[in-house]
Parts: sequence; structure tokens; C-alpha cells
Amino acid sequence: LSAGAPHPLDEAIALQPLGPDRWQGRTSPAYANMVGPFGGVTAAVLLQAVLQHPARQGDPIALTVNFAGPVADGGFEVVTEAARTNRSTQHWQLRMVQGAETVATGSAVLATRRPTWSALEANFPAVADAPSLDRAPPIGRVRWTSAYDMRFAKGPMPRFGEPSASQGDSESLLWMRDEPPRPLDFASLAALCDAFFPRIFVRRPTQWVPIGTVTFGAHFHADATVIAHIGSAHVLGHARAHQFRNGFFDQSAQLWGAGGELLATTHQLVYYKA
Amino acid sequence: LSAGAPHPLDEAIALQPLGPDRWQGRTSPAYANMVGPFGGVTAAVLLQAVLQHPARQGDPIALTVNFAGPVADGGFEVVTEAARTNRSTQHWQLRMVQGAETVATGSAVLATRRPTWSALEANFPAVADAPSLDRAPPIGRVRWTSAYDMRFAKGPMPRFGEPSASQGDSESLLWMRDEPPRPLDFASLAALCDAFFPRIFVRRPTQWVPIGTVTFGAHFHADATVIAHIGSAHVLGHARAHQFRNGFFDQSAQLWGAGGELLATTHQLVYYKA
Repeated sequence: LSAGAPHPLDEAIALQPLGPDRWQGRTSPAYANMVGPFGGVTAAVLLQAVLQHPARQGDPIALTVNFAGPVADGGFEVVTEAARTNRSTQHWQLRMVQGAETVATGSAVLATRRPTWSALEANFPAVADAPSLDRAPPIGRVRWTSAYDMRFAKGPMPRFGEPSASQGDSESLLWMRDEPPRPLDFASLAALCDAFFPRIFVRRPTQWVPIGTVTFGAHFHADATVIAHIGSAHVLGHARAHQFRNGFFDQSAQLWGAGGELLATTHQLVYYKA
Repeated sequence: LSAGAPHPLDEAIALQPLGPDRWQGRTSPAYANMVGPFGGVTAAVLLQAVLQHPARQGDPIALTVNFAGPVADGGFEVVTEAARTNRSTQHWQLRMVQGAETVATGSAVLATRRPTWSALEANFPAVADAPSLDRAPPIGRVRWTSAYDMRFAKGPMPRFGEPSASQGDSESLLWMRDEPPRPLDFASLAALCDAFFPRIFVRRPTQWVPIGTVTFGAHFHADATVIAHIGSAHVLGHARAHQFRNGFFDQSAQLWGAGGELLATTHQLVYYKA
């Protein structure tokens, strides 16, 4: 990363105004998936449309993205609508279009938090710290994997074609951060929520099958102060599936700061053709 | 329930066409909350708008509802839009309006499942069976609680003003079904996904505080055949919070059939004023 050059993620989520609620963006080769862009960056783009909107009020607490159809490499437009603004919450409806096609729909909820009684109930997982684990080699034909530093304590991405044994479940536990490093913010956290490999590959590491996320949701538990405190350190991701059934499986995950801060919980439903 | 009379839930979710993608409904006294209607029925209404839509293709796999503002007792309109129809999935954008105000937004994903390799990974909780537990008495001033038969194995709704001790966490485990009984379908399952009492009341049973669900999501793991097999039997709900923090807490839950079928997973974010 040359001095002064924008981080590749900031390039990938950059939007130019086309009108009061219409924004122009472009997919980024650095975040290419096997076909089209990495879904996490699509989610980050939709959130970014709200984050940079002049009518924005508050910080994100929830994001939903429905992947309605394939996103083609190239330009896209994002349509934003502040459906309702209350005193402490703001509700946005979102859409990504390419030509006449809706390729993604979504919604975001922003809120203003006030300090009050708080309690963390989920347990930070027992795990080796990030520096004691090796970075997993990126997957050449899946370009976006080079945009993350991932260090697996459990449930790595299998290398199809190489000998591999199933661990019997779909659980993954890994440290991850942007590569090159970039201070965490809501947009990069949204993308990290989708950076887990498909659970079916962890459960069945010997068979590659076509998959695609259909719907994605994230709850942001951390506010901007907590997120800024993380900086460019690794965050811990912990993911599993509840069920694989007749063409769709789910993925539930938590993202944690190394200091035990619960940053986000996320859940998605993924199509698979087994 | 007199012979031939519709079930109160079917009355509560009934919609009349106002145009190709506009539907008229009305809140139901049987599902009244302390203020306005029970959110689970609002979610069921939005899903019902899709289920009864002539352009519907497939069965629901996911539903998102954002509670944008208070729903007033009385009439409302639902606006539906099939944003994208693919071969095996269909994406709907949804909105509930009262006068000029958007009171809820949402989206639904429908899909056609095909039998293939499947695996259940989540564990059915250890629990006493429904007949061995007593029905919890409904809460008089919260009318919708009379529309459910709930039998708690853990984490009941506290009776504010009566002596009560915190169990130290927000976990609830309970059997529940419509009262009077009604065969389970996607609409009633959506409502059941929101029928858990607010987690903060389980965690802090001595203090009533204002709360309100801000966003709600459900993944439907069961198809229509599995759901029909449940009939009007109790389903097992298992809910907990990950975190309460500065005005918002989450709730994650699973809904199971008594035979060990995972029916739905659900997650919501709730405003609280502590």
C-alpha cells in the first residue's frame, strides 16, 4: 500500500452521487469472488451508502442484505430511502441495481445509544492468540481471500483435491483482519461478518459444491468508540451452522475483539447444490 | 371457538386487495400488546401478504421485519413488491403503512427446495415434555399472551411486583402453541418467533422497563411438509441474549418440533430504557 493511496476496501465501497438518493459504485478486482464480487463487500457498499448519506442519523445497529441475483463485475447503482426517522432510530431501505435488474435489496437500522445498564452474556471462546497461529494461505482463484489475514484455530477452508478429513461439524474459529491492515469501522465489520467460508465446506471438506448466500443479517453490538478501539487488530470469528436441509443451510457467527468485546452477531442463509 | 368461525390468528392476518400490490388489514384486539399490536402478528401479516399473493413462487425461507414506528390500533395497508423472481428463489420487499407513515418495513425470501444431502447440527435441548408442565397464566394487561399456551421449563416471564430472583442469565426454554389450538403454518410460525418475552425481563425480573423490538429476522428451516406434520402440537422455543448494551439487546432463539425437527431460527434487536 503506497503512502497516501486509499485502502482497497475504501476503493471498493466508494460511491459517487447521481441524485439525492441514488449512488454510483463499481465492483473491485481486489474483492472478486469466483464469480462476481465477494458478498461481504456488497453488504459493506449498501451500509456505506447510508453511512455517507447526508441524512444519516446515528450509527448502525442492524443490517440486512438479500442477494437477489448475481452481481456482474462493473458498475452498479445503490438506491437509498430513509423510510422513517425517529428520535433515537432511523430505518433505511436499500437496493442495488445493475441496468434494469435488482441484484440486492436490504435495510439498515441506525440508532443513538445512551450509556445505561449493560451486560455481556455470551462467552468469549477459548482460543490461542492471533500471533501464535499462522496465516492461512489465500486461495488463488478466490481473489478476495487475499484481502484478509485469516488464522484458523478450528474449521479451516479445505483445499479441495487434497486429502482432508471432516471434523464432524461445521464450526470455525479464526482470527481475521483486513490485509493490508485497516482500522476497523462499521463497513469493514459488515464485510468481515460475511468472510466465513461456506459452512458446508467445513462440514464436508472433500466435496466442492456450488453455493451462494441468499440473505445476510448482522447486528452490531459495538458502538463507534469500541470499534475505534479495535484499530487494525485481528478480530475473532466464531461460526457454525444449525442445519443443512434440502438446498439451504444457515450460518450463525459472533465477532469479538481480542479484549473480549462482542462486536457483532451475524446470520445468513445459503443456497447449496449437493 | 365456535364451529366454522375462523381462528383469531386468521382474522388478525386477513388482508383484502386494494390494488395489485396493496392490501388492507386491521389490527386485532385478540393480539393487542400493552400499546398497539403484538409484533409477532405484524410479522405474520407481512409474511401473509406474500403467502396469499398471486405471484408467489415457493415457500418462505427467510423473513425480516423492521419495526419503524408504533403501529396504531385500527386499519393498515401492506405494500408488496416482488423485487426479483429467479428459478428457485423469489425476493419480496414489504412495507406496512398507516396514513402517510411507514410503520414497518421488511423483506421475505421464498424458495423451492429439492431433496438432497441434509444434516442437522444443532442439538435439541434436554427438556420435560409439554404435558408434564403447567400452562403459565396469561398476563391480563398483555392481551396477546392469552392467545398462546406457554409452558416454561426455564426463564418464565416474571410477575413484576411479586418476589422474584434472577436466574443470572436470560435463557428461556418453553413449549408454546396457539390458544385455541391451530395447525402450524408459516404465518403462525413467524408469530411464534416473536412470542418470547423480552430477554431483559428474564435477566432482571425485578424491574419493568420500556422495551420495543426494532428489527426481527427469522430463518425457516422446515418446509411445508414438516410444518404440516407438527399440526397443533406445542413447539419448543429456546431463547437467549448475547448482550445488553447501552439501550439495545439482542435475542437469538430456535424453535423445534417435539420430534426433534428444527423449525426456525430467529434473531431480533430490542430497544430498552433501563
